[in-house]
Amino acid sequence: MVQGKTPVEANDGKTTRQRRNQPLVIVNSGAGKGKSTAAFGLALRGWNQGWSIGVFQFVKSAKWRIGEQSALETLAEVHRDTGKGGPIEWHKMGSGWSWSRKEGTEEDHAQAAVEGWAEIKRRLAEETHQLYILDEFSYVLKWGWIDVAEVVETLQNRPGYQHVVITGRDPHPDLLAIADLATEMTKIAHPFDRGQKGQKGIEW
Amino acid sequence: MVQGKTPVEANDGKTTRQRRNQPLVIVNSGAGKGKSTAAFGLALRGWNQGWSIGVFQFVKSAKWRIGEQSALETLAEVHRDTGKGGPIEWHKMGSGWSWSRKEGTEEDHAQAAVEGWAEIKRRLAEETHQLYILDEFSYVLKWGWIDVAEVVETLQNRPGYQHVVITGRDPHPDLLAIADLATEMTKIAHPFDRGQKGQKGIEW
Repeated sequence: MVQGKTPVEANDGKTTRQRRNQPLVIVNSGAGKGKSTAAFGLALRGWNQGWSIGVFQFVKSAKWRIGEQSALETLAEVHRDTGKGGPIEWHKMGSGWSWSRKEGTEEDHAQAAVEGWAEIKRRLAEETHQLYILDEFSYVLKWGWIDVAEVVETLQNRPGYQHVVITGRDPHPDLLAIADLATEMTKIAHPFDRGQKGQKGIEW
Repeated sequence: MVQGKTPVEANDGKTTRQRRNQPLVIVNSGAGKGKSTAAFGLALRGWNQGWSIGVFQFVKSAKWRIGEQSALETLAEVHRDTGKGGPIEWHKMGSGWSWSRKEGTEEDHAQAAVEGWAEIKRRLAEETHQLYILDEFSYVLKWGWIDVAEVVETLQNRPGYQHVVITGRDPHPDLLAIADLATEMTKIAHPFDRGQKGQKGIEW
């Protein structure tokens, strides 16, 4: 990506600076790999800018601790110890959200998703983070656990400078319609297709 | 991605363990965002596994220091100081490779690319890293600076357990043909299309 190049000229009366610093809704979808990985890669950029970052993993199993979590939590420790970079919080739905006392089970994922979204709404209103990663959030919309109209309204009216990245297959069209940046990861070839199993470092 | 699920059964006489730990050639292509970002996200997983990681940025300008470099170099420092995670080296072609005494200029990029590839070949032969990220390497093949047949032969015959990720648009068909995992990042919507400029934390 070439820095700062725009294929069309904006005609919106804004200054370059105003156009440059726009909070984005970003959607990474598709059947290919890289939806979450690219989101976590973006967290590296945000960390380096000193942003506060909140990661919210929907759907993933409680026991599932992916390498990105360890690595990003290490960067969060560096921030706490030295002030370098920014703070990163990592929250998982699977085992019950960290702010909730309840232990989650497989059965009450729908309610956990609703609670997770309520917390994200609160944080957006309070402008807690500059970057939110709602990992696999497309599915909770697809399954009707959370009302897409409410999500769209909340994202469109969020105050201040807050980027929101949503990952997962089959994003709702109403969500895609308000995305500033939407990328579909398309599979060309995948080792699973020829019987290769998932392996550490690549899948988690 | 569901862990360990394979849609087809392999019939290659290998054990599950052998099939699980296969070194991969990974190609992230397409006009959308996330090619490099997903590669650097994968580096987080590799770091967490304690892998040695080598990043080789082809093409990018010398002055261009992206957030991922700072963040991954911070993780490399943590590894040096505490033993946590793995080592990460970051090399850029733009200003002359770090192992070369020469200052590069815009004019001798082709030669710098050849030198970079020669170094990567040496490291593959010596099994220096478990994960190589050849960022924007597709372009040096496209421009004919490096012979694709030699790259394909080297990758196919590399010894041991070494993953290689190549990013960039328009990957050569011969490269795609040997990719174990190939994903195309397709643009659905992009802020540049409506005059939005690149911004810190998102584009770099």
